[in-house]
Amino acid sequence: MPRRVHAVRPYDPTGTSPMIALERAERVMARCAALAAYTDEPGRITRAYGTPALRSAQEAVAGWMEAAGMAVRRDVVGNLIGRYDAADASASAFLIGGHLDSVRDAGKYDGILGVLAGVAAVERMHEAGRRLPFAVEVIAFADEEGLRFHTAYLGSRALVGTVDAAMRALTDADGVTVAAAIEEFGGSVAALPESQRKPAELVGFVEVHIEQGPILEGRGLPVGTVAAIAGGTRAEITFVGEAGHAGTTPMDRRRDALAAAAEVVLAVERVGGAEAGMVATVGELDVSPGASNVIPGRVRLTLDLRHADDATRDGAEAELRRVVAEIAARRRVEMAWRVIQGYASTVCDAALTERLAAAVVARGVEDVRLTSGAGHDAVPLSGLLPVAMLFVRCAGGISHNPAESVDVADVAMACGVLDALLDELGSGERRVVW
Amino acid sequence: MPRRVHAVRPYDPTGTSPMIALERAERVMARCAALAAYTDEPGRITRAYGTPALRSAQEAVAGWMEAAGMAVRRDVVGNLIGRYDAADASASAFLIGGHLDSVRDAGKYDGILGVLAGVAAVERMHEAGRRLPFAVEVIAFADEEGLRFHTAYLGSRALVGTVDAAMRALTDADGVTVAAAIEEFGGSVAALPESQRKPAELVGFVEVHIEQGPILEGRGLPVGTVAAIAGGTRAEITFVGEAGHAGTTPMDRRRDALAAAAEVVLAVERVGGAEAGMVATVGELDVSPGASNVIPGRVRLTLDLRHADDATRDGAEAELRRVVAEIAARRRVEMAWRVIQGYASTVCDAALTERLAAAVVARGVEDVRLTSGAGHDAVPLSGLLPVAMLFVRCAGGISHNPAESVDVADVAMACGVLDALLDELGSGERRVVW
Repeated sequence: MPRRVHAVRPYDPTGTSPMIALERAERVMARCAALAAYTDEPGRITRAYGTPALRSAQEAVAGWMEAAGMAVRRDVVGNLIGRYDAADASASAFLIGGHLDSVRDAGKYDGILGVLAGVAAVERMHEAGRRLPFAVEVIAFADEEGLRFHTAYLGSRALVGTVDAAMRALTDADGVTVAAAIEEFGGSVAALPESQRKPAELVGFVEVHIEQGPILEGRGLPVGTVAAIAGGTRAEITFVGEAGHAGTTPMDRRRDALAAAAEVVLAVERVGGAEAGMVATVGELDVSPGASNVIPGRVRLTLDLRHADDATRDGAEAELRRVVAEIAARRRVEMAWRVIQGYASTVCDAALTERLAAAVVARGVEDVRLTSGAGHDAVPLSGLLPVAMLFVRCAGGISHNPAESVDVADVAMACGVLDALLDELGSGERRVVW
Repeated sequence: MPRRVHAVRPYDPTGTSPMIALERAERVMARCAALAAYTDEPGRITRAYGTPALRSAQEAVAGWMEAAGMAVRRDVVGNLIGRYDAADASASAFLIGGHLDSVRDAGKYDGILGVLAGVAAVERMHEAGRRLPFAVEVIAFADEEGLRFHTAYLGSRALVGTVDAAMRALTDADGVTVAAAIEEFGGSVAALPESQRKPAELVGFVEVHIEQGPILEGRGLPVGTVAAIAGGTRAEITFVGEAGHAGTTPMDRRRDALAAAAEVVLAVERVGGAEAGMVATVGELDVSPGASNVIPGRVRLTLDLRHADDATRDGAEAELRRVVAEIAARRRVEMAWRVIQGYASTVCDAALTERLAAAVVARGVEDVRLTSGAGHDAVPLSGLLPVAMLFVRCAGGISHNPAESVDVADVAMACGVLDALLDELGSGERRVVW
């Protein structure tokens, strides 16, 4: 294969020149834009686990990985992994990654940026013909958002070995189980243990991600490291009242499931706003039967509750359970509260985060430590290896939205920080242990 | 075709014997149960306009109509019409009817009972070989509920000639227009004027229908006549806020379309309960993007508002418009209020209702005059010919629900009242004019 034009540029171990850094960032962003074309829903970006759109996005990324000198494979749940070997092919691996699945009507960068920043970092080494004392694996997780099965981290949990029977039995809107979807996507449930990675083979994990919040923008900073990822609760609340004719059932005889749900939506908003740093959201709400002239007999809604302090979040959850039970009793509707997922706060690895922060400071950027309100694959991976994250300023703090926007200069800064981290980790005789 | 066993029973012009009346009512109810098998959604009764389920139900009813000596046809929107001629084939027609379409997850009787009571009335005459001075047409309207296009009375409006361009352009959830659905269902938009009926050819219209309310049950009466049908407003309210990440967007920066909608649901409930006889319902509510970890950016909901007094309803609608605008302004979300349908209260024809009430009293039942909270095909038809309705007690006042239930004795009473009305209208030399 002919070398690309970028390949003739000299490797700069002290930091990429501003011009080349911008060109690389432009390429990263152009690739983010190119991946936006692969969607389950024409006209907007939606890539759920196991869909043809996700497969097509993986094929595009695999091509870029191969061009960057990586050996590409898909693991048994369908994560795409490109490995750039160390000089010693048996060396342990440093992971850089993100995810290629998306929420419904997503933006172009959430998850994608981490994958393509990783590809860019390996391209730089490949173009210079350089190997590090450890392998670098760029990993594109196949399901972080949990759009299809309403549970996050299927991709990264496969590496940790926590895709348990309960998770495999979850079903999508068509009744397809996680297990069936894994097989359908070319994976293998029987081979799930093979996806599990051994800590001894792993150096660490870093993800470059848009901040999805307003802090960096407010402080005028391009990037910042992540100190912790907020814990969260996802629950599904179902009310069953009584359907009836909208024109003939007197108001005082109704058991309207939607009216009960509406009270919950407002209670969730109130509880979320009562504590600094808390966020609480009802993102799905389905009404049944769902006809304009029929009183809703059944409503299902989701709760997403997050806070960096687990005790504070537990308190808010208990308060909401109390409120929901009171609403159900007062309105004479049945209520079910099902916990879909609960996860504690994750503190990022202190040593790896210090090295990442040092790379930030070395490029002249103030060191801020952020709390991530969003969950990331670093949450399950933190049980397996040291994790760190680098956030990139995004316009208005907007994410999970087509309006997601990042500045090319900020992407260039993030890529430069990643380069510097790899250079520092791979320099001299210093062992990559912390 | 061999005559049926029922056909050998003697015609009883003074009223059907109790035994025969019960057998007829049992047959009517068995047919209602048989039609429940034709559904768009296995496991529950849902028959939208133009679907294979509706077509199959029509074929079953057409068979019963033909067996009762009726000439059967479908008009250009797909209403099924069985005509039992008068001795003079050019005589005007008395219409008896109901509808075969349903709401989602419907009961077995709403609309159906009117059709099958009409078939039973003609069977009685056919079995006796009797003709009236006017033809009797049993009409099964193809779309009364408006499930598919969110607008009621497509079937009966075709008779009145008010299926206008705006109605024809309405679209279903898949973007199919009313016009396309008419053609797809074997009808013809170009031939719509042919469906329009001339008042001179029509004597009147009566529908037997379940009460869908608790009055008859509360008073211990099997049937009652309808004085008026409440006016109604159907509107669609859309909020557009801003989608965003549920974990990272601070509560005070959100523009959550669902939180706005939740306030509207509760306001609709409050306004509906503030005035005696008012009912107000949000029956549909769709959330977009609709993922548990995304703040809802867009919500569409429906309003159904009814009251027998138009001015009272107008006042409630104005109040809700004010409240909705206030919510939108306070929450910084865009709002659109689209009137889908508005219809004034309909007063049933006084003379025809008196004759129907006389038939009720003649069978020993107290004369009560009800207000219908539900709309019926009598609403548009009242612009074309004299209309009257006979309500049948239903358990708990429940309708638009699989739990719809009527007693066979009450159905027998309703059939007997219908027989008596036809006998009286058709007796002697008296002209059927009022």
